[in-house]
Formats: sequence, C-alpha cells, structure tokens
Amino acid sequence: MLTSDDKNQELFLGIDGGGSKCKAIVVDSNNTILGTGIAGPGNPLHGFEQATNNIAESARLALVDANLSDVPLSSITAGVGLAGVNLPVLFEQMNDWAHPFKKMHLATDLLIACLGAHDGQDGAVMITGTGSCGFVHVDGVSQIVGAHGFPHGDKGSGAWIGLQAAKQVLLAIDQLVEPTALTGMILNFLGAKDAVQMVEIIAGKPAAFYAKMAGFVFEAANNGDAVAKAIIEEGADYISRVARQLLTKQPPRLSLIGGLTPLLSPWLDHDIQAILAEPLYPPEVGSVIFAKQQ
Amino acid sequence: MLTSDDKNQELFLGIDGGGSKCKAIVVDSNNTILGTGIAGPGNPLHGFEQATNNIAESARLALVDANLSDVPLSSITAGVGLAGVNLPVLFEQMNDWAHPFKKMHLATDLLIACLGAHDGQDGAVMITGTGSCGFVHVDGVSQIVGAHGFPHGDKGSGAWIGLQAAKQVLLAIDQLVEPTALTGMILNFLGAKDAVQMVEIIAGKPAAFYAKMAGFVFEAANNGDAVAKAIIEEGADYISRVARQLLTKQPPRLSLIGGLTPLLSPWLDHDIQAILAEPLYPPEVGSVIFAKQQ
Repeated sequence: MLTSDDKNQELFLGIDGGGSKCKAIVVDSNNTILGTGIAGPGNPLHGFEQATNNIAESARLALVDANLSDVPLSSITAGVGLAGVNLPVLFEQMNDWAHPFKKMHLATDLLIACLGAHDGQDGAVMITGTGSCGFVHVDGVSQIVGAHGFPHGDKGSGAWIGLQAAKQVLLAIDQLVEPTALTGMILNFLGAKDAVQMVEIIAGKPAAFYAKMAGFVFEAANNGDAVAKAIIEEGADYISRVARQLLTKQPPRLSLIGGLTPLLSPWLDHDIQAILAEPLYPPEVGSVIFAKQQ
Repeated sequence: MLTSDDKNQELFLGIDGGGSKCKAIVVDSNNTILGTGIAGPGNPLHGFEQATNNIAESARLALVDANLSDVPLSSITAGVGLAGVNLPVLFEQMNDWAHPFKKMHLATDLLIACLGAHDGQDGAVMITGTGSCGFVHVDGVSQIVGAHGFPHGDKGSGAWIGLQAAKQVLLAIDQLVEPTALTGMILNFLGAKDAVQMVEIIAGKPAAFYAKMAGFVFEAANNGDAVAKAIIEEGADYISRVARQLLTKQPPRLSLIGGLTPLLSPWLDHDIQAILAEPLYPPEVGSVIFAKQQ
C-alpha cells in the first residue's frame, strides 16, 4: 500500500470532463491506475464554477480511492481534457483558472480521446455518444469534423437519433406518416398517451434526454422497423462520411469510441467497419499521456 | 372623437398573445377597430407573469391609442387567444388569472386565428411563421395538427427552415456536402467565418433566432440553389400534408396565414394552392368574434 510520501512527483492526474460527468484517475510513473474518481459535469459550456468544482472534486475522489487522500493536489501535475474548450473563449477561461494542481495541461476532450485510443501516437477517432464528432491528429496537426452540438449538429449521435425518433412519433400521431413499432416504443418510454402529453414531456429537454431514446431506435431498426432503419441509416451514413473526411489526413489508426459504438458500428459502411481499430486506452489515460508529452 | 362615457359596455378587447409579441385591439359594437396596442410576448410557455403583464399592457396601450385611456379595463370584456394554452396545464393557469377585465374568454391562438380567417364561421387554417401548425374547426369540434414546438416539431416553419439551413452550412464547412450559394448567405448573415464562430453564435438560440434565416433559404431556393430547394420542398410537402389532413374534416374554407405565407404558398402542392382562401380578418379580430360568440 502506498503512503503519502511515495514520490508524489511521479504521480499524474488524468481528467476527462464531459457534459454528464467528470472522471479522474491518478497514475504512477508506469501509468498504473492507482485510483479513480467521478464527479458531476466538467464541461465549462454549462458553467465555469460547476465545471471547476467537479474537476477538482473528481481529482480529490481519485486520491481518496487510491488511499492517497493526504497527498495535496498542489503536488501533482494534471492533464485535463474538457468538452467545450474547442471554443477559444472557453479554452482561455479554463486555462486562466486558479487551479489546485501543481501544473495543469489543458486540452480538448477530442485530443485526449484520440491520444488515449492510439496510446499517444497519431490517429483519428469518431466519438458517438450523446453527441458526435470526428477528430484526427497527425504530425502535430489536429482537425475537428463536426462537434457542433445539439440540435444544429451532432448528426448520428444519441441525441440526434432520439430527436429524429421523437419527430417521427409526432408525425405518426398526427397521421401524417404511418405509425410503426417505434411509435409505441417511444410513447411507452416517455409514458405519454398523445401528442400533448409527449410535448409536455420533451419540450426544452437537453441532448442527454433525447439520447436516452436512441437505444429503442437501434432495437427497432435491428428488428426491421422501416422508420427506425431510415434514421439509423442516415446517422450512420454521416459517421461514415466523417470517417472518410478524417482518412484524407492519412491517420495510421482510426477508432470509433463513445457509448453508441457497439450499436452503431454494424451500420457503418463496410469498408469503414473493416479498418476500425480497437481503442487502446480510455480518454482519461489520454489526459495523462498528454500531460507527460508537454 | 369618443369619450370615456361612450357606452363602455359595447366595447370589446381582442387579444392575440404569441411568442414574440402580444397584440390587442379595442373595437366598438360594429367591430370597428378604435385602437391597437402591442406589448411583449403573451405566450405563458415563457412565464406566467411576463405573459399576464404583457396581455394587460397591450390592452392598456390599445385604449390609449383609441383615446380611451380613462376607460377602466374592468369595464370591458376581452377575448384572449394565446399560444401555449393548448397545453391543459397552461390553459388552467391562465384561466385562473385574476385578470383586470370585466370578463375574459380564453382560447388558443389557433382557434382565434381560425375564427378570424373565416369571420367566425367553420374553416381551417395552416399557420406558418416562427412555428407551424394546422387547425380545423367544424361543427363546434376542433382538431390540431402539429403545433408541437421547436426543435422536435414545427416542420415547415421559419425556425425549422433556418435550423435545416444551419445544419447544411455546418456540413458544408466540414466538407461533408458541397457548399452552395446558401452557405455564404447564412455565414454572411451570422457574421461567422468558420464553424467555431458559427456555433458560438447559434448555440442555444430559440426558435425566433433560427426563423430569421428562413428568408435567405427562400431567396436561394427561388434562385435554384439545390440545398435550399430541398429544404423548402421538404417543408412545403409537410404543410401540404397538413392541409390534406385538415381537409378530411371538410372545412368550408382553408387559409394559409402567418409570416411565411407569401414565401411558402407557391411551394405547396398545386391542388392545395388552388383551394386556399384569403383570410378575412387577423387573429385579434378572431378574439373579438370568440368573445362575442360566448
């Protein structure tokens, strides 16, 4: 068991802050994970104070989990990858944070995911969870494809799939399209009997709410539901196009990551499926790799 | 010129409260409009206090405009048509309002628009402005088609058209679709040079913001822009389908109303265009008609 005087200078924190949670790991010099901490959203798009509180809290929880709670954060260098900081104004705001760490190396959630997936080497990733995007990092140059947010972007994401399904259910209730099995699945999930009830439930809801419906759309599509299939095919076609765009930069590896990966990958174009490489490490390890590269 | 003791009991207020403004008219027993007042949003979806303040303010301004500012609201019966009160919870909340009028007869914005368009007779309307919907009122029975809101419904509306355009511009910036003239028009309107700037401008914006882009989409479509045409054709196809759904109830008249009417009507199916009837009166007159019918 480690004690607090165990070479703190060889500890690193790796943090992945997204829209639903912030995950921190503390690792030793061999990148062995000593402890993990989870806190609330770390995306500064939803508020600077909430994000910084959750980043620090996840780090403290990781130290507690590692039985290192008496090691001060101020003695450890942190790699921090955050959703939202691809927007310059948020990057500057977060980078100016009077953070509690020894040093903080800030990167986008996309870069740390890519570094993690390819163990710090060049490569590309497509991320499909609540949102969607593509990212490629070759010869020190990065490019983002997508990552524009909901509802104007993030095609092929869980939120996009859920919103498309909700639209189709409302059209079916209005008898403007034929209802399918998906109609009942979504109404049942929402606990709604008609359009008025459904709209009361979904109006103004954020991306994460819509993303909860994506699983039903995949289930229906896999059972041959025509409406669900059309939604998934359109979303998968977009992700396949993102892949082709990323491949023009000739990344040595391409991975699909994020919560939708197992559901979505069978729907991608076959040549894209064939070249997908397993991600090597999760994004929070990518944060550690990033911090060590700086 | 009228004075304050001119038979107040024969005055009526007609109020049309929507998401962007609340419009009130004061009329005499012959429905001659004596004055008009405009205040902020009257849609209780965006807050009860704001809506009720604006409804009362629009009524007071109408009296001022009619040189009837010394007539108390408590001496006049008001017909009030409001967006949002198709949701039962909002109807009850608004109907329980300790309103300042002699009597208040509350209806949906859809019913008063329909009564206005057809001078109190049976008929149907399709409303396409910031939002979209269809409404038919025959033999005392009403039916709504659409009216589900943004971004999950309101297909064919200004907000929907603007959002579709924004999505296509982001796809073009990402080189996932070919850019067209529309791409530059939208970026120029937004004052954005790239996707990051564009997303900073549009993220989290309400329906009314997206609706401001609809005019550019129609302009591009009318000039043969393929992307713009596809958006307008899909939206117009939806409105044509709404029309067919309304016609199954055999309304004597069908009108297209709302801010998009002149732009959208040439894109509807030809048989639908051919039967469209001019609306006879605006919604606020429909509110007066409704109050007098009660």
